[in-house]
Amino acid sequence: MSFGADYNPEQWPREVWDDDIRLMKQANVDVVSIGIFSWARLQPAQDRWDFDWLDELMDLLAQAGIGADLATATASPPAWLVTQHPEVLPVTENGTVLSPGGRQHWRPTSPVFREHALTLVRTLAERYRDHPALVAWHVNNELGCHNLYDYSEDAAAAFRVWLQRRYGTVDRLNRAWSTDFWSQRYQEFDQILPPRTAASFPNPAQQLDFHRFSSDALKEHFIAERDVLRGFTPEVPVTTNFMVMGEVKGMNFADWAEELDFVANDHYRQPVADSREELSFSAATTSSLAQGRPWFLMEHSTSAVNWQPINPPKRPGELQRDSLAHVAHGADAVCYFQWRQSAGGAEKYHSAMVPHAGEDSRLYRSVVELGETLRRLDPVAGSHRRPAQVAVLMDWESWWASELDSHPTEDLRYRPELFAWWLSLLDAGIRADVVQSHQDFSGYDMVVAPVLHMVPAALQKRLEHYVESGGHLVTTFFSGIVDEDDRVWLGGYPGALRALLGIRVEEFAPLTRGEMVVLDDGSTGRLWSEPIDCAADVEILRRYRGGDLDGRAAITRRAHGKGSATYVSTQLDASGRSAILPELVRDTGVIAEVPASLRGRVEVTRRTGETGDFLFVINRTDDVLDISEFPGEPVIGVEQGSKLLDPRAVAVLRES
Amino acid sequence: MSFGADYNPEQWPREVWDDDIRLMKQANVDVVSIGIFSWARLQPAQDRWDFDWLDELMDLLAQAGIGADLATATASPPAWLVTQHPEVLPVTENGTVLSPGGRQHWRPTSPVFREHALTLVRTLAERYRDHPALVAWHVNNELGCHNLYDYSEDAAAAFRVWLQRRYGTVDRLNRAWSTDFWSQRYQEFDQILPPRTAASFPNPAQQLDFHRFSSDALKEHFIAERDVLRGFTPEVPVTTNFMVMGEVKGMNFADWAEELDFVANDHYRQPVADSREELSFSAATTSSLAQGRPWFLMEHSTSAVNWQPINPPKRPGELQRDSLAHVAHGADAVCYFQWRQSAGGAEKYHSAMVPHAGEDSRLYRSVVELGETLRRLDPVAGSHRRPAQVAVLMDWESWWASELDSHPTEDLRYRPELFAWWLSLLDAGIRADVVQSHQDFSGYDMVVAPVLHMVPAALQKRLEHYVESGGHLVTTFFSGIVDEDDRVWLGGYPGALRALLGIRVEEFAPLTRGEMVVLDDGSTGRLWSEPIDCAADVEILRRYRGGDLDGRAAITRRAHGKGSATYVSTQLDASGRSAILPELVRDTGVIAEVPASLRGRVEVTRRTGETGDFLFVINRTDDVLDISEFPGEPVIGVEQGSKLLDPRAVAVLRES
Amino acid sequence: MSFGADYNPEQWPREVWDDDIRLMKQANVDVVSIGIFSWARLQPAQDRWDFDWLDELMDLLAQAGIGADLATATASPPAWLVTQHPEVLPVTENGTVLSPGGRQHWRPTSPVFREHALTLVRTLAERYRDHPALVAWHVNNELGCHNLYDYSEDAAAAFRVWLQRRYGTVDRLNRAWSTDFWSQRYQEFDQILPPRTAASFPNPAQQLDFHRFSSDALKEHFIAERDVLRGFTPEVPVTTNFMVMGEVKGMNFADWAEELDFVANDHYRQPVADSREELSFSAATTSSLAQGRPWFLMEHSTSAVNWQPINPPKRPGELQRDSLAHVAHGADAVCYFQWRQSAGGAEKYHSAMVPHAGEDSRLYRSVVELGETLRRLDPVAGSHRRPAQVAVLMDWESWWASELDSHPTEDLRYRPELFAWWLSLLDAGIRADVVQSHQDFSGYDMVVAPVLHMVPAALQKRLEHYVESGGHLVTTFFSGIVDEDDRVWLGGYPGALRALLGIRVEEFAPLTRGEMVVLDDGSTGRLWSEPIDCAADVEILRRYRGGDLDGRAAITRRAHGKGSATYVSTQLDASGRSAILPELVRDTGVIAEVPASLRGRVEVTRRTGETGDFLFVINRTDDVLDISEFPGEPVIGVEQGSKLLDPRAVAVLRES
Repeated sequence: MSFGADYNPEQWPREVWDDDIRLMKQANVDVVSIGIFSWARLQPAQDRWDFDWLDELMDLLAQAGIGADLATATASPPAWLVTQHPEVLPVTENGTVLSPGGRQHWRPTSPVFREHALTLVRTLAERYRDHPALVAWHVNNELGCHNLYDYSEDAAAAFRVWLQRRYGTVDRLNRAWSTDFWSQRYQEFDQILPPRTAASFPNPAQQLDFHRFSSDALKEHFIAERDVLRGFTPEVPVTTNFMVMGEVKGMNFADWAEELDFVANDHYRQPVADSREELSFSAATTSSLAQGRPWFLMEHSTSAVNWQPINPPKRPGELQRDSLAHVAHGADAVCYFQWRQSAGGAEKYHSAMVPHAGEDSRLYRSVVELGETLRRLDPVAGSHRRPAQVAVLMDWESWWASELDSHPTEDLRYRPELFAWWLSLLDAGIRADVVQSHQDFSGYDMVVAPVLHMVPAALQKRLEHYVESGGHLVTTFFSGIVDEDDRVWLGGYPGALRALLGIRVEEFAPLTRGEMVVLDDGSTGRLWSEPIDCAADVEILRRYRGGDLDGRAAITRRAHGKGSATYVSTQLDASGRSAILPELVRDTGVIAEVPASLRGRVEVTRRTGETGDFLFVINRTDDVLDISEFPGEPVIGVEQGSKLLDPRAVAVLRES
Repeated sequence: MSFGADYNPEQWPREVWDDDIRLMKQANVDVVSIGIFSWARLQPAQDRWDFDWLDELMDLLAQAGIGADLATATASPPAWLVTQHPEVLPVTENGTVLSPGGRQHWRPTSPVFREHALTLVRTLAERYRDHPALVAWHVNNELGCHNLYDYSEDAAAAFRVWLQRRYGTVDRLNRAWSTDFWSQRYQEFDQILPPRTAASFPNPAQQLDFHRFSSDALKEHFIAERDVLRGFTPEVPVTTNFMVMGEVKGMNFADWAEELDFVANDHYRQPVADSREELSFSAATTSSLAQGRPWFLMEHSTSAVNWQPINPPKRPGELQRDSLAHVAHGADAVCYFQWRQSAGGAEKYHSAMVPHAGEDSRLYRSVVELGETLRRLDPVAGSHRRPAQVAVLMDWESWWASELDSHPTEDLRYRPELFAWWLSLLDAGIRADVVQSHQDFSGYDMVVAPVLHMVPAALQKRLEHYVESGGHLVTTFFSGIVDEDDRVWLGGYPGALRALLGIRVEEFAPLTRGEMVVLDDGSTGRLWSEPIDCAADVEILRRYRGGDLDGRAAITRRAHGKGSATYVSTQLDASGRSAILPELVRDTGVIAEVPASLRGRVEVTRRTGETGDFLFVINRTDDVLDISEFPGEPVIGVEQGSKLLDPRAVAVLRES
Repeated sequence: MSFGADYNPEQWPREVWDDDIRLMKQANVDVVSIGIFSWARLQPAQDRWDFDWLDELMDLLAQAGIGADLATATASPPAWLVTQHPEVLPVTENGTVLSPGGRQHWRPTSPVFREHALTLVRTLAERYRDHPALVAWHVNNELGCHNLYDYSEDAAAAFRVWLQRRYGTVDRLNRAWSTDFWSQRYQEFDQILPPRTAASFPNPAQQLDFHRFSSDALKEHFIAERDVLRGFTPEVPVTTNFMVMGEVKGMNFADWAEELDFVANDHYRQPVADSREELSFSAATTSSLAQGRPWFLMEHSTSAVNWQPINPPKRPGELQRDSLAHVAHGADAVCYFQWRQSAGGAEKYHSAMVPHAGEDSRLYRSVVELGETLRRLDPVAGSHRRPAQVAVLMDWESWWASELDSHPTEDLRYRPELFAWWLSLLDAGIRADVVQSHQDFSGYDMVVAPVLHMVPAALQKRLEHYVESGGHLVTTFFSGIVDEDDRVWLGGYPGALRALLGIRVEEFAPLTRGEMVVLDDGSTGRLWSEPIDCAADVEILRRYRGGDLDGRAAITRRAHGKGSATYVSTQLDASGRSAILPELVRDTGVIAEVPASLRGRVEVTRRTGETGDFLFVINRTDDVLDISEFPGEPVIGVEQGSKLLDPRAVAVLRES
């Protein structure tokens, strides 16, 4: 297990560095990410370089046995670059040029920025290719955090090239974009612009392709840096830090992941309901991007962050709990932003491993304690996710497409729908993997695919084949509606899934805010409802009660081939999901892995590797829990014998 | 009765067209609006034209006996035009250029746009002038829906010309605009700009004139297209579709109406309280624009729209109810946006006559049923509004002026004040027409003019003469305050109406949100209150109870000449309006046309023509109503004899 | 006592002027501010001047014995200037150029504007230097009300000059701005920009310096105009009107004040809780800027304003009460915006001394009555603030710094924290002065310094010395955190005050909205909490009860030297502050000046001068109060003998 942080010694006098190394060793830190925001230091002017300080730092690290995850330092361009070349600055959809003063003020598609960035990467790679401290390359930083959507002329030109590559002819683009609507037909690619602020709703397919293009543009930047690095150090792994968390959707990480030598992620807990479980869901998603292999937790926080409206500290115990929850889902490295809390700048109130208060602090002592815990988890390192029986299917393009404007309701959010089902499975004691729609899901007994909005023909076939072969598919409202061009599958909803589900819906009936529907088991639905017409072979699991839909089907299931296809037509409340789940699971072979008495109170995950099988038990409550029902020999978290799990703690058991 | 829709066959393969014609005939469709967004198809490049498809379409329609309301196709400029001439794009008040990607991205005052648009109109008119399908010209589409307020250099230049035309000399403008305030005095027209984003409140008279100018600029565009068309086909009527609905106020349709050969309107129900009655109020307003003559319902929806935050479908029965409610107020054509629901584009979730589900759908069957109903209403076609005894006075410039900034309260909304009184009249069973302030209201027994904010001297005189001659005027707070230059009538409020009402107010007392005043009949007022001083001949109908205004007059009435003038100084709640109405109506000759038992439960309207007098009874409830008290022979809606009116249905009776 | 208003006769025909003079004399008006927005009149074109009307006006005033506070008329540039030189227009942070149409559309740093403005000032000064009506110069108007933050190229250039002056070398700036964070290091001053819209949080020290620079830029404009005036009329005092009220913080008036010959202020009551006391707090703050000497109330309103969302009138009696409350805090002049209510323009619904209703109005009669009252207060004129025992310490830079972004909570507002403590002192009958942090506070028995966020080393020493010498300091959370560069004092919070307070905090624990903590006296805290570690010599006055902080110190006090230092770690509710105050006051020598029976019901202030000592008693209630317990001979407000004080009234007693 690796342990470490972003380390920004540039911000501190030289004498502090020695103190840092001393404390890092005390805390068992063995890896630090350096140089992330060092461009201005490394290259103070276009023709001036200063590597002395970094040479010294790398040597210090090597001496101390601490690995360097060396950043390419391209995350934020220096003042001289934007002064000489203001044309690298991003432009918002309404034409505002984003100024320097913060960070990441560069256009992903700027040839000028690209050239300067790659020169820097080349220079760094050449210099440190053989340095003993170098353990990995860290490309840029949180690509797309602030500069994803750029509407500049550079972006316009690159967008056109991207479209030409995708469609070949403008005629194919016209078809895909439905440009006969509103007189939008193009004659040449050169007439096309990014979806800048318009007088009315911009073309949705244009918006969708701009999502795709923007994600690709940053991916290409990553690849460009990576390829330079690989040229120098083919054996040193290259990564960049994803931001799988909350509503971050702009970068299609499912698509990016295979370009990385190993997946790394940044995760920060947000002040939302079920924030702890959101962490697990994000970690499970990261695990899916890593295809179940171990990954790197590149950033999280020891305590408060600085960028929320209100930034409370973590409560006692949560520092360790959050870190281990990531490990439970496959992290082999636990790193923080950042090592030493800044005295100045925009992130000075962001917590760190060494706080403003210094080493004589509860926070630093907890960090040291975690370092010890991680050392005891070394046997876990390298182990893979042990596949679950249930997959929650995630489809990045459905995420984009289902949240476009001028839809039946603007209140639909894609990821919370997935999270809700994942949470209900967790509450039922059923372990579920997150699986990306392009990944193979045929091995899962059950696939839950909420709001699978965009279903191209190929996915339609894969889903049909899955069910025919014995899989159990559960999907919901607003699924199967459009193809890859955001064009509606005609003939009735849910379009591409209509035959498989055996149902037909003529009109959506979205619910206004505060409005709800009642089902015949007493549970309620919000956001959406629908009048469903069912084929003869469809079983009605729930009906609407009262209102205009009284007596009509609300949840349906159709046995098909060796499997089944279930449809949920409203946004069920938690009790509704919990009530229906046992019925959906029955006869699928899916079993709960949590004893009934602990369901809803612990989360379990499993990793498996050469050193054994590991069971992680995460306490979701503020109570001491008796987890002796779980077999296995404790590695950390509980005393052997007692198996009493502290509130907000994580136990690791080695399964026999 | 005509029946039809916007028809956009460009969006569909040729084989669908035949299906369309078959279904149109099945549904009794006899008119379709075509070509609205066809510019990019008709003129793929500046020097290239493609009429083949439209020729074929027009022939198909003619063959099928379906009339073409042929659009001039200028609503949305094609890509080549905005690429060659980005200077046609509108500019927002803060300088953002609005991009293509949506629709209506053109400056109303652009000479370049105008030239290209008129070339297109000329070409179309020349080609189809004699085509048998052609029944009307449809200029542009929803003029001003997105591009009303343009702050470009073109707009600035045109604004100056407009101002010069209005004021002649800059000195007159300085007086009208009160430019001695804040050092705003101009020396030349060339110094004047549109009210672009400023550091503080822009000059209100400048804002007001920019409203007037912006409305006029679009009207001039309409006239320019119309005049081209009239040159080719003097006998073919020319129209454009208004948007009389909700808070759409930017286009002074009262001023535009006389330029149209017949009035056409688009109306969409919005998720507001009393949404059904809002439809009626809009339709009554449209009827006023048509001066009581029949008009054309150019667009409404069969079910959900796509542009609200949440877009629920219509409930069973509402499709027919809404259409017939428009007919009740004078519509002789019932058309929808659109014929066939789009598979792609920004409006693909907007309902249509043929939904995504296809012809085998409840929606399409309702459409066919409505087509049959309308055929039975053919005798009604051509009949006029039968004038009511009461007029609700609407004044477009008061609408603009009363909602300007830096006022006693920003919460005042003009139209809801009119609607509230209209609704109370309706609840009392009293039929009321909407009358525009420039129209003759002398024939009405009672004129209700809420928030008649701007009263130029001429209107002041007309109102005084109306009352002297026996009319009964009811007006409210914030009426009579300013003249046509938004300059306050001095000496005490309500300025221009002070003498007629016999009252004087020294200061407004607007109410904060949540605050209310109580009247001595127990009703309450919100938004506004005032300390009123009354002349000796003024009767106090209601007093304030409690608070700083305790015991002072709240509603006053002054008998004057043969009539009376009533003043209501607060925004009465519905019960307050209902309680005072009988007192206001007493002795005016106004009678309720709805039997007491049905008041508040039905709306009645009347049309009269060569084929007879027709009474429309609109069920406002979800109950079956016995409407046998209404005399007359049923045309539609109820069985003769029983006269039981379905919930949300409309009955038409032929009066004897 | 002076009495008057802004007077804008340009807006009225000549015949009205005579009426104005007649009414002014009737109302005892003896001073008017004229010419504030007259630039366009005085200089209709660059090479054309028109002084005739102003000559006539000045003569009229002189004749009537009314003094002219003659404005330099530079507040709003005329149309010809911005047409010829659009480069004087301010630019927002996102690049929008602010248009004329309102007022104050000029860049504070524009050399072009400066040149034209000073030419105007010179011309005016030369012409009226010897005019008998001239009593004071009124520079510009409400400097910075709308154009404080300008991000134009002029601003960028001036900002660089300012930074060079402040830091000398770019290296010192890099240190102060912590530019090693996020690769922001500069090589040259020319690379620096104002904090225009960026992709992420802009550098906080850059933001802070932009606050300082923007305030200085306007101060320099004031000085430039002042110096021209002083050149002509060294004996005529020069002022400008501050806006000490509510959240207006952009202009560092504490820094500006010494540049004025006398302090003048504009104050408008806002619809907030304790709005009357907010007036007093603002007036006390103004008094602190005037260093206790008399000041000039340049603007307030007789009744409603026009710029709030909803603008209610003043209630009966409040016109006089508000004016006298300012006098109670040191105003020697009571002036309004404006003399005669405008008939047109953006402020036509702003109340005035002569309302739209004219002289026959309650409002005008109240004005006349106030004029008489003020005449009876003539003996008070010239008297100074009699120092209180308690000071509420105000620190303008802490105001700016504590409200920067990316902080523990964005909900913290600096001024309300000061106001809350000031109000609690007032409720306890304890008179408190506002004192600016650069002023001498050593004479006060107690200094309350809430959220003293920025504590440079010098202030740290002054506070330590204050306590050692016997002073009693009370401070709160988020105090002592940063130095003048917004860099955190390391080692634990509250940084610079840690030693003095004897406490140490490792982490902030801000509270989410709605969240609260409970103290062991039952009072509650919001916004903030902290785990405090106390030194041995620290007394714990309150502890947290329940929650994660259960039992830990909430309010602490450390005796030190001859004084003490108290720390309050949460935002106490009013009851909590009221409960702790007696404990804090005990043994400090501070005494309540209000009899127990009247505490919370009256505010008292004291002025002292050659004609005696005056006690002002302000009724905070809507009841008649018996104030006979207060010794002294009534000047106004109560009958001698009865000493019954009307609701919302002010009494002045001459102390023996």
